[in-house]
Amino acid sequence: MGEELIRTLERRAFPIRSLRLLASSRSAGQKRPFRGDLLTIEEVTPGSFANIDLAFFSAGASRSREFAPHAMGQGAIVVDNSSAFRMEPNTPLIIPEVNGDSLDPETKLVSVPNCSAIILLMAVAPLRQLGKIERMIVSTYQSASGAGAAAMAELETQTREVLAGKDPIPKVLPHPYAFNLFSHNTPIDEAGYNEEEVKVMQECRKILDEPNLKINVTCVRVPILRAHSESVTVEFADTAPSEADVRKCLQHAPGVKVVDDRNANRFPMPLDASGTDDVLVGRIREDLSNPKGICLFVAGDQLLKGAALNAVQIAEHLLAKRPLAV
Amino acid sequence: MGEELIRTLERRAFPIRSLRLLASSRSAGQKRPFRGDLLTIEEVTPGSFANIDLAFFSAGASRSREFAPHAMGQGAIVVDNSSAFRMEPNTPLIIPEVNGDSLDPETKLVSVPNCSAIILLMAVAPLRQLGKIERMIVSTYQSASGAGAAAMAELETQTREVLAGKDPIPKVLPHPYAFNLFSHNTPIDEAGYNEEEVKVMQECRKILDEPNLKINVTCVRVPILRAHSESVTVEFADTAPSEADVRKCLQHAPGVKVVDDRNANRFPMPLDASGTDDVLVGRIREDLSNPKGICLFVAGDQLLKGAALNAVQIAEHLLAKRPLAV
Repeated sequence: MGEELIRTLERRAFPIRSLRLLASSRSAGQKRPFRGDLLTIEEVTPGSFANIDLAFFSAGASRSREFAPHAMGQGAIVVDNSSAFRMEPNTPLIIPEVNGDSLDPETKLVSVPNCSAIILLMAVAPLRQLGKIERMIVSTYQSASGAGAAAMAELETQTREVLAGKDPIPKVLPHPYAFNLFSHNTPIDEAGYNEEEVKVMQECRKILDEPNLKINVTCVRVPILRAHSESVTVEFADTAPSEADVRKCLQHAPGVKVVDDRNANRFPMPLDASGTDDVLVGRIREDLSNPKGICLFVAGDQLLKGAALNAVQIAEHLLAKRPLAV
Repeated sequence: MGEELIRTLERRAFPIRSLRLLASSRSAGQKRPFRGDLLTIEEVTPGSFANIDLAFFSAGASRSREFAPHAMGQGAIVVDNSSAFRMEPNTPLIIPEVNGDSLDPETKLVSVPNCSAIILLMAVAPLRQLGKIERMIVSTYQSASGAGAAAMAELETQTREVLAGKDPIPKVLPHPYAFNLFSHNTPIDEAGYNEEEVKVMQECRKILDEPNLKINVTCVRVPILRAHSESVTVEFADTAPSEADVRKCLQHAPGVKVVDDRNANRFPMPLDASGTDDVLVGRIREDLSNPKGICLFVAGDQLLKGAALNAVQIAEHLLAKRPLAV
């Protein structure tokens, strides 16, 4: 995700006077290209953030908990991609297209939501124009990238091994991954839900500002490299809007691309979503089991809109409201 | 599926005096091992069925429509794995564990249900003991095997090509399959549902003898070789049974194995289901969005319980009711 963040800042011409790359001692000394220069990664320390206006964090919740307070203390605005602060009542949890308007320009810390929540809400949130949403039922098809670059590499390595007749031993993820799928690799709570599912449920309620929204999520890891897909049933409080109205609404939704060609049997696929900023939405149809329901199938790049792109868009949104001295 | 049928007859010691293998002219002359002999495949013709007591059909709906009437006309009982006759009102559509008791011993033709419907109902039908089921919401994770041996080979070939940096051209299935997924490759109807989804919805109603059962199905092809998985929400007419009661019920259900280890994060996986007769069920939990709902995750071998095993079990069931002169 760090790599994608650098590339996203570059291609969106984010206004940067000087970029510093901070990481653990393990990566310190490595170099990364940025706008024709080669930047050297420095080891992050509590004192690393002097004269930093804006800091993107994407090294997991414990790193964010450790270093974000130092960054803020030294005057930086923090855009945090981890789960560390997402559910803190005073921390904005932002998808710019969905709830960017709620962002206070004076805020010091903004959290980037969970990738599955972002991809889901990019497709579902616009439908609030058509009626009150009461419930969502979601099954995910999540890629390796959500578990990091090592998991992506493991999927490739294991697949090579299986094709060579070998029996690979999982290291990064808990189960064999080649030509297999498994329930999301996060701890399970007493109700039987894994952490990823709980994040999606809680974060959707916070982002939509609908504390009573009903959500049922099943998170599954499939052998795909970098885009998440989701099968979604949306239930409205009253009779669902027509399929035509849903299609029209999504065709006008920012950051969403409708891919829904029934004749060609072409719908959102992770391969098409990979490397793409837009979240793809298709299989738009009435729920035959419920007059209040609409079904969708969604695919989005987990590393882009699910993480790096959304983080940079948050920063762009903040800059538009409060220009920094960059 | 033909291969799996021969192996299933063999390992279950199905009472056979003489086995004949019939196929198109393309396969005629090839040999297949059976109980220590090598049997030669013959070309099927309308006259092929003289002196045949029992004929398994598994060559697709058009072959079944063409040849099943000849087989029956010559006195054979037909167990048909295709969709050709499934929805005909007088044709029994049977999962022995679910509705085997409804099988008339005088029947001449029995249809094997769609593989996704079988795997779904193996897990859901037993729950009818706990309360009336009103609705099911299902998203599938279907393997290549449902599209035949050529599709399984294509998944392997394409994956090798992608890992070698090549850009494969799909031949058997309509979309790139390596590290990708796509909506099920069957024609889409006017309501936006593909044929596979319609089959699952219609066949579940027929098998359960619940013409008004509400079902919402999304069928997706994932890059997995031979087992289907399904994320299922079951809604009861009244408050759902407790999670403990659901677990106990499924632990006693024939042909079902509960795999639901929250501490080890081990739940049904297609790799574990492959080559296994039982349908695996786990992720048993209450639907947090609906007091009438229960969630499950199911995996079953598409070629075994989803096809060959179920066909042989139907024949065993018929034999138990009406011994043939074998």
